[in-house]
Amino acid sequence: MSDTLLNHRIRLASRPHGEPTAENFQHDAVAVAAPGDGQVLLRTRYLSLDPYVRGRMSDAPSYAAPMEVGDVIVGATVSEVVESEAEGYSPGDVVLSYGGWQEYSVEPATRLRRLDPDAAPVTTALGVLGMPGFTAYAGLRAIGKPQPGETLVVAAATGPVGSAVGQIARIQGARAVGIAGGERKTAHLHELGFDEALDHRAPDLPGRLAAAAPDGIDVYFENVGGPVFAAVLPLLNTFARVPVCGLAATYNATGLPEGPDRSAALMGAVLAKSLTLRGFIQTEFAPAMFEDFLREMTGWIASGQVRWTEDITDGLEHAPDAFVGMLRGENFGKAIIHVS
Amino acid sequence: MSDTLLNHRIRLASRPHGEPTAENFQHDAVAVAAPGDGQVLLRTRYLSLDPYVRGRMSDAPSYAAPMEVGDVIVGATVSEVVESEAEGYSPGDVVLSYGGWQEYSVEPATRLRRLDPDAAPVTTALGVLGMPGFTAYAGLRAIGKPQPGETLVVAAATGPVGSAVGQIARIQGARAVGIAGGERKTAHLHELGFDEALDHRAPDLPGRLAAAAPDGIDVYFENVGGPVFAAVLPLLNTFARVPVCGLAATYNATGLPEGPDRSAALMGAVLAKSLTLRGFIQTEFAPAMFEDFLREMTGWIASGQVRWTEDITDGLEHAPDAFVGMLRGENFGKAIIHVS
Repeated sequence: MSDTLLNHRIRLASRPHGEPTAENFQHDAVAVAAPGDGQVLLRTRYLSLDPYVRGRMSDAPSYAAPMEVGDVIVGATVSEVVESEAEGYSPGDVVLSYGGWQEYSVEPATRLRRLDPDAAPVTTALGVLGMPGFTAYAGLRAIGKPQPGETLVVAAATGPVGSAVGQIARIQGARAVGIAGGERKTAHLHELGFDEALDHRAPDLPGRLAAAAPDGIDVYFENVGGPVFAAVLPLLNTFARVPVCGLAATYNATGLPEGPDRSAALMGAVLAKSLTLRGFIQTEFAPAMFEDFLREMTGWIASGQVRWTEDITDGLEHAPDAFVGMLRGENFGKAIIHVS
Repeated sequence: MSDTLLNHRIRLASRPHGEPTAENFQHDAVAVAAPGDGQVLLRTRYLSLDPYVRGRMSDAPSYAAPMEVGDVIVGATVSEVVESEAEGYSPGDVVLSYGGWQEYSVEPATRLRRLDPDAAPVTTALGVLGMPGFTAYAGLRAIGKPQPGETLVVAAATGPVGSAVGQIARIQGARAVGIAGGERKTAHLHELGFDEALDHRAPDLPGRLAAAAPDGIDVYFENVGGPVFAAVLPLLNTFARVPVCGLAATYNATGLPEGPDRSAALMGAVLAKSLTLRGFIQTEFAPAMFEDFLREMTGWIASGQVRWTEDITDGLEHAPDAFVGMLRGENFGKAIIHVS
């Protein structure tokens, strides 16, 4: 079977300088490989687009090794078993994999997580019940620790991390202030139950944020950086916690912003307000917390306490444009490519 | 008795702009006040000079309310009871107080801690067995958490906080790299048992620091800021901890440094290396840890595992010059004024 199929894929053609362009992506097709012992051949159904992938396209030092030029672009996938040489997997099984930007992939069975299509829509394994949802859960549980009556702020709040952050914080009794781009998104934040929703494209974000957080900010869940963080910093309360899981606003930056140098002022605020800034990648907390997350989040979804939104684009060939759009904040909800 | 005595004191005449100058300090003398019920009259024997006092001379927002112009400059003191209207205190008792820059003060007995001159030199209550030593102890225990084999870096390492940080870290099995200004100080760091001692005045601190920390830096105990932090940041390991208890290099700053703006790069490092930056004031941890500190540190002093150095200046009138010198790093060990 695998001899007769072509695998269309998208590879890193060159490293982007600033925002990725079409020439950074190379589309090609190769023969589908056959699974070896203990492996399965997977057909990609859904591909997750995530901001961290922009970092892996660069060769600047980061928490994950960069892709090499020529590599298939990385990404989590919901895939279907086509052919199995692994015990326990049969054709038709649906799994969470890390197949990347291609139609087919061969994976060892040890790297798969089986999905139950009857328990929840399988695409949730890429969003609210997957890495983004767990990022929200773990960052709050391990670092942010919102307390009843405290105020939490999160940006990119209609995105898969931000929307989970705000909704979990509210379940835990905190006030949730969401920041997003445009009226359609802020309206959606109100539907999700956020206490306040601010449009970062409207004028005077600092003033509106101060009004939305009259008792100051106790938790700022940092996933964007840039002007939002600048508006948040003066409002942070003593002992505020800042889990840092992403800096999407800076991922396409090609150099340091112009001065003055605010890093000393940032450290001054850390000292003066006994702040906690803590960067994290969700994998750090998965061994201790992932099972709890699946149990709790599945319950919150079932009860309607946590809702999610998906932004699904049809066709692998549109992945580059959808990816760049996501980095610009043009997606509305979890960005997913429907591959097949 | 208190009717016949003059209390020489030094008050805040005006707020400094940059480094304090003589005109910011007003010397005067007033009649010594009499203690009321529950109070004692104290004569200051030793006055502690500490960098945080520079912050309280300004009216910029900070963790402590600023002094008002006209206030006696604040500071911890080792004082002797001259007259007591409080049960349990008698003339001749030696106490830790917060008498400030003056020869006499009246304090409620509830704000005093009795010192035992036979247990340790009383001046240690201002340094290794006092606030600076506890700052080192609590910052390491609550935040820095040096593990055996890890590398810790601390600047101002011959100062009362830094020298305790390095010595405690070594007791806990970590390598200690100390940074100080000048050869006399780096030689002293070797005497204290630091594994490496670097002179920040010599060229190429970043290169020498990288050589002194070949496995990277796991704990950076931040008490100075400025160029040392810039040299440390690229060397921090994944999951490194940065307790931030002071930024002495910036206390006299009159504005933001010139660009580029490195704050985004700092946040990028926090994310990429899962760093923890945590500001703290030692009072946060005193209820939970101060008794443990006194017990452990007293033991380490008795065993010779922790040593300390004092830089004692005679005469209250020299406090302003000694204070400015300390902010410049001209002191060698804990800066103390011998008042009487």
